[in-house]
Amino acid sequence: MSDQAGNTNQSADAAFEETVSSLTGFLRSETRRAGRERLVLGLSGGIDSALAAYLAARAIGAEKLHCVLLPYRSSSEASIRDALAVVEDLGAHQERFDISPLVDAFVETAGEVDRIRLGNVMARARMTLLFDRSEEHRGLVLGTSNKTELLLGYGTLHGDLASSINPLGDLYKAEIRALAAKLGVPEPILRKKPSADLWPGQSDEEELGFTYDEVDRLLALLVHERATRQAALDRGYAPELVDRVTRRIVAHRFKFRIPIIARVRGREDDFDFPPPADWRV
Amino acid sequence: MSDQAGNTNQSADAAFEETVSSLTGFLRSETRRAGRERLVLGLSGGIDSALAAYLAARAIGAEKLHCVLLPYRSSSEASIRDALAVVEDLGAHQERFDISPLVDAFVETAGEVDRIRLGNVMARARMTLLFDRSEEHRGLVLGTSNKTELLLGYGTLHGDLASSINPLGDLYKAEIRALAAKLGVPEPILRKKPSADLWPGQSDEEELGFTYDEVDRLLALLVHERATRQAALDRGYAPELVDRVTRRIVAHRFKFRIPIIARVRGREDDFDFPPPADWRV
Repeated sequence: MSDQAGNTNQSADAAFEETVSSLTGFLRSETRRAGRERLVLGLSGGIDSALAAYLAARAIGAEKLHCVLLPYRSSSEASIRDALAVVEDLGAHQERFDISPLVDAFVETAGEVDRIRLGNVMARARMTLLFDRSEEHRGLVLGTSNKTELLLGYGTLHGDLASSINPLGDLYKAEIRALAAKLGVPEPILRKKPSADLWPGQSDEEELGFTYDEVDRLLALLVHERATRQAALDRGYAPELVDRVTRRIVAHRFKFRIPIIARVRGREDDFDFPPPADWRV
Repeated sequence: MSDQAGNTNQSADAAFEETVSSLTGFLRSETRRAGRERLVLGLSGGIDSALAAYLAARAIGAEKLHCVLLPYRSSSEASIRDALAVVEDLGAHQERFDISPLVDAFVETAGEVDRIRLGNVMARARMTLLFDRSEEHRGLVLGTSNKTELLLGYGTLHGDLASSINPLGDLYKAEIRALAAKLGVPEPILRKKPSADLWPGQSDEEELGFTYDEVDRLLALLVHERATRQAALDRGYAPELVDRVTRRIVAHRFKFRIPIIARVRGREDDFDFPPPADWRV
C-alpha cells in the first residue's frame, strides 16, 4: 500500500517535471526563434497569468520577465495585491498602467455600451498596451488563455486571446490549478474563484453556466475522444450541458482562425510555404 | 487587328466580371455563414477600403453596409473628403469617430512613443472601434489588406490586419487599382499616392523602399512560382530588392498565424475538427 502510494507520487512528480520542462523549453525556444530575449506578460492577479509568470521566470529568468499590471477602475484591490505578490516572489520587472482613461476615452467617443462590449474594450486596451510594451522591451507577449477557455471561446478576440506565444493553451483549468500549486503560486491566488475581473463580483462559472470541474472532463471527452452527443449522454452528462458546450465549441472557432481571405488564385498561391534554400532571410 | 483588340477587351471584361462575381459571392456566403447580415468597414479615403466598400455594396446592398470613418488629428482633409465621396456615391450608412482622444489617452498613460509605435496604437484603436460597431450592427468587420501588404507584412497585427472576412487579400496592389477603376471608385482616390495616412506626408512606397509596381511582379514570381533567389536575379531583379522582399516575407509571417500554443498533448487533440454528426450545434 505505502509502496504503491509512493510509486504513484513518484510518477505524478515525474509527469509534473516533464510538463514543466516541456513548457519552459517551449518558452525558451520560441523566444529565441523570434529573435527576442524577453517576455512581456499582463498580470491580472488570477491563476492563469500567475502560472504563466512562474513558468516564464523558470524558462528565461525573472530578470528578463516584464510583468505588466493593467488595472481598471473597478478591478478589485485583491487582484492588484495578488499580482504584486507574484512579482515580488519572482523578482521580475514590474510596470503598472491604469487602463481607465483609455476605456473612458472610448466611451466618450463611441458612447455607452453594455458590460460585455465594455469588457471587450478593456481587453483590447490591455492588448494595445502589452504589444506596445513588448516593442519597448524587444520582447514577446505571453498568452495566458488555458485550453478550457480557448475551447469555449471564453475570451476577447484581439484582446486577451491575442499573444505571441502561449504556454497554457493546451492545459485544462484543473491542470492549471495543479501546476500552479506545484510551482509555488501564492495561496490566495490558488484559492480564489475564477473571474475575468471585468466588473465587481464577476464569476467565470456563473457567466458560463457550469463549473470548470464539470466542463473540463466533458471537454476532454469531446475533444480527445471525439465523442458523439450520444456517447456523452451515455457517460451521464446532462443533455443541456452537452448541447451548451458543443455549441460554444463550434460557434467560437472563428476566434482561432486568421481572417478568412477571398481566394482568386489557387491554394498553391498561399504564402506560408518553406522559403527556397537560397533566399537570404 | 481591331478584331484581336476586341477579343482581348472581351476576355479582360470576362475576367473582370468573373473576379467581381467571385468576390461578391464570397462576401454574401461568408456573411450568411457567420449568421450575420451586415458588413462594417473602416473607410480611410484610400483605394483599398474604397474598393472593399464598392464590392460589399454590390454583394449585400448599400443599405446593409456601415462605413465608419476613423480620422486622427493628423489625417488629411483630402482623406476624409474622399471617404465621404464613396459613402455618398454608394448610399451606404456612415458613422464618424475621431480616434484622437483614444490615442491621447494611450500616450498620457504609457508615455510618448515613436511614430511607428504610435501608428500601431492608432490602428488598434480603430480595430477596437470597428469590432465594437460590428456588435452594435450585428455585422462582420471587413478586412481591407491586399495581397501585396499581407505578403510584406505591411500592417499592424490586431490592428488594420484584424478583420472577420477580407475580400482583397488575394489581390496584388496593381489588381486592386484595375478593379477599383472598373467598379467606379472616384478618380481622386484612384490617382492619389498610396499612404497609410498615419502621419502627414507618409508614403507607403517611400517607407517600403520600393514601388508597388516593381514589388508586385517580384512577389508573383516568388510566391506563385516559388522562385529561388537566383531565378529572380536571372529575371533581372536587383539583389538588394530580392533580399529585402524575401526577408520581409519570411520575417512577417508571424502576423498571419494564431498565437503559438505549447503542446502537451498530441496534434490529434487540436480542437479544429469536424463536429460529430449528432452534435446539436
